[in-house]
Amino acid sequence: MRHAVILAGGSGTRLWPASRRGRPKQLLALTHDKESLLATAVSRARAIADDRVVVVTSEALAAATQAAVPDVELIAEPAARNTAAAIGLAAAMILERDPSAVIAVLPADQHVRDREGLTCALDTCLTAVERTDVIALVGIPPTRAETGFGYLEMAAGPSDGVRAVLRFVEKPDQTTAYCYLASGRYLWNAGIFCLTARRLLAELDTHLPQTAGAVRQIVRDNGLVLDPRGLYEALPAVSFDTGVMEKTDRVVAVPAAVGWNDVGSWAALPEVCGHDDDGNTILGGDAIVLDGSRNIVVTDDGTMITMVGISDLVVVKAGGAILVVRRDQAQRVREVVDALGARGFARLL
Amino acid sequence: MRHAVILAGGSGTRLWPASRRGRPKQLLALTHDKESLLATAVSRARAIADDRVVVVTSEALAAATQAAVPDVELIAEPAARNTAAAIGLAAAMILERDPSAVIAVLPADQHVRDREGLTCALDTCLTAVERTDVIALVGIPPTRAETGFGYLEMAAGPSDGVRAVLRFVEKPDQTTAYCYLASGRYLWNAGIFCLTARRLLAELDTHLPQTAGAVRQIVRDNGLVLDPRGLYEALPAVSFDTGVMEKTDRVVAVPAAVGWNDVGSWAALPEVCGHDDDGNTILGGDAIVLDGSRNIVVTDDGTMITMVGISDLVVVKAGGAILVVRRDQAQRVREVVDALGARGFARLL
Repeated sequence: MRHAVILAGGSGTRLWPASRRGRPKQLLALTHDKESLLATAVSRARAIADDRVVVVTSEALAAATQAAVPDVELIAEPAARNTAAAIGLAAAMILERDPSAVIAVLPADQHVRDREGLTCALDTCLTAVERTDVIALVGIPPTRAETGFGYLEMAAGPSDGVRAVLRFVEKPDQTTAYCYLASGRYLWNAGIFCLTARRLLAELDTHLPQTAGAVRQIVRDNGLVLDPRGLYEALPAVSFDTGVMEKTDRVVAVPAAVGWNDVGSWAALPEVCGHDDDGNTILGGDAIVLDGSRNIVVTDDGTMITMVGISDLVVVKAGGAILVVRRDQAQRVREVVDALGARGFARLL
Repeated sequence: MRHAVILAGGSGTRLWPASRRGRPKQLLALTHDKESLLATAVSRARAIADDRVVVVTSEALAAATQAAVPDVELIAEPAARNTAAAIGLAAAMILERDPSAVIAVLPADQHVRDREGLTCALDTCLTAVERTDVIALVGIPPTRAETGFGYLEMAAGPSDGVRAVLRFVEKPDQTTAYCYLASGRYLWNAGIFCLTARRLLAELDTHLPQTAGAVRQIVRDNGLVLDPRGLYEALPAVSFDTGVMEKTDRVVAVPAAVGWNDVGSWAALPEVCGHDDDGNTILGGDAIVLDGSRNIVVTDDGTMITMVGISDLVVVKAGGAILVVRRDQAQRVREVVDALGARGFARLL
C-alpha cells in the first residue's frame, strides 16, 4: 500500500509574530483560503495515500496539530532529533503493519500551487519505487538563482521523467546558484521523496544503525520499552538528507515544475498569495497602502494597518506584536525573536 | 486682573492614529510625564493668571476637555469659526466681569521645554500691554529654516526686550526660511500673545465688526439671544492673525528662546520627548529596535513593536490602528486620514 508521512515538527520562528512556539508555520493559514499549511499538506498526501496519513510532530505541538487535522494518525516525538529519526520512527511503525509499504514523505509547511502536478509527480516517484526500489525525490526546476535551498544534480542524458541523482549540494553561493540555474541539470531539493519502508529501514541500518535500532525497538516493544524517551533522546540529531540520501546511490529525481515554495520568510508571501496591481500583498484584514508598492502587510485581528509613501516593507501585526522589516531582509526576523528571548519577553515567542 | 485663555478646539488629524476626532492632540499625553498637552498648557497659564483659566473648545469636545482639566472655566463654541471668533467670545465674556482685564491667549497643544522662561516672557508681554495697550506676542527665535510656521519680522535696533513687529509672514519657502534664520530679525509666531480685553474687542470692532457684535450680544444677552448658535455660525471663519494682527500697527513681540514646539506631526516627537543613544524615540510601551536609528515608535496598549534594519521610520500603534510613514513625510498622515474617511472607516477617525 501507498502511505504518506508528513513532517510537522517545525518550530517556525521565521514567520514571527504570526508563528510562535505553540503555533508554528505549518499551523498558520497564510493563503486566502484560510486553511493551514498542514491541512493543505494533508489534502495533498491523501491524493496519493491508500491508508490514513501519518503526521509526525513534537509532543508540545501534538494537541494543536491533532486539532488542526483531526483525521490523521499522529506520532508525537519524545524529543526533536531532526528528520532521520522522525522519518525512521514513522517508517518503522508503518512497516510493522504493512511489510510492503511504500511511503511518500512530505514536509508540512510548504506551498504548492499546482496540486495535481504534484500528485502526478508523486505517482511517478511511487511507481519508480515500486518497480526498482529506488529513493525517488520530487525535484523542483529552479526559477531563480536561489541561495537558500539545497540542490540535486541530475545525471545528463534522456530519461522517462525519472533521472538519476549524482549528488546533493547544500545552499550554494550566488555565482554557483546562477550556474545551476543556467545548466538545467540542477533541481531544488524540496524535501519530498518516496521509498519503501523496508528500504528506508535498511538504509538506516547501513548509515544510521543507532537510529534504526531505536525506532524498531520503540515500535516493536510499544509500551514495554523501559525508557523510550531516553532511547530517542540519545539518537544523533541528523537530517535524512545528510544521514542517508547523500550516502546512498539509489537516489533518483522526478523534475516537477509545480509552483513550489517553502514559505521560508515573509518575503515569500507574494508568490504564495499573489499581490494587487501595485505589487502589494495584503493578508488577513484591512489595510490602506498609499503611494507605495511591493509591501507585504499582514494583520490578524482587525487592526487597521496604514502606510503612506513606503515601498518594499514588511509590516506584520499578530497576537499582540508588530514586526517591521525590509522585504529584502525578511530573514532577520530571527534576530528579533532572539532579542525578545534575551529581554524576557517569553510570552511573545 | 490678568486672565488666560487657552484655545483647545483643534481637531488634530496630524497625530493620527493617537489623535482622533474625539481625542485631538491637546488631550494626548505625548511626553513621558503622562500629562495631556492641555493640562500642561493650563499649568503654564495658571503661572500668569489671577483668575480661573478659560478654555475654549468645541461642543463635541466639551465633556472630554472638562474631564481632562476639571478646574477651568470652559467655553464650548456653538460652531468652529477659527480663532478670531473663539478669542472674541472669550474676551467678551471676561470683559463683562472685569472691564480692565488683560488677557494672555495660549494654544492648548504645544510643547514648551522652558516653562519658567515662558512665564517670564509672558510677564514681559503683560507688563507692556498694561503700560502701553499694545498687542504683545511671544516670538520664538528660529532654530532651523522651518517652512511650516508663520514668522514675525521685527523692527531693527535696540530694545528693552519688546520689539515692534513690522509684518507677519505666512509659511515661507525654503530659501526664504534660510534668509530669515540668518538675518536674526525674524521670530516664529507661536500663537501666544497678550492684550487687554477692551483692546481686543476694539480691534474686532474695527476689523471684524460682525464678530465683535455677535460675541458681545451672545455674552450680554446670555440665554436670551433668540439664536446664539445661528449668530455664531454666521460669523466668518477667520484667524485672529489674519483678521486682526496683520491689520493693526499695535503689535510688538518679546523674543523668547523657550524650547517651543508645536508638535505639528509625529516627526516633532524626538524634540519633545528626547531619544535614546541610537536616536530612536520610543513612547508608550515596549519596543525593540535593532540596527536602526532615528525611528519614532509609539505604542499605546502593550502591543510590542519590533523593527530590524530600519531607520527614519515612524510606526505608531494606537486604538486599533497602525500608521507607518517615513519620518520626513510625517505630515502625509493627513492623506491616510482622508483615505480612511473615503473608504468608510469612520470608526477610526
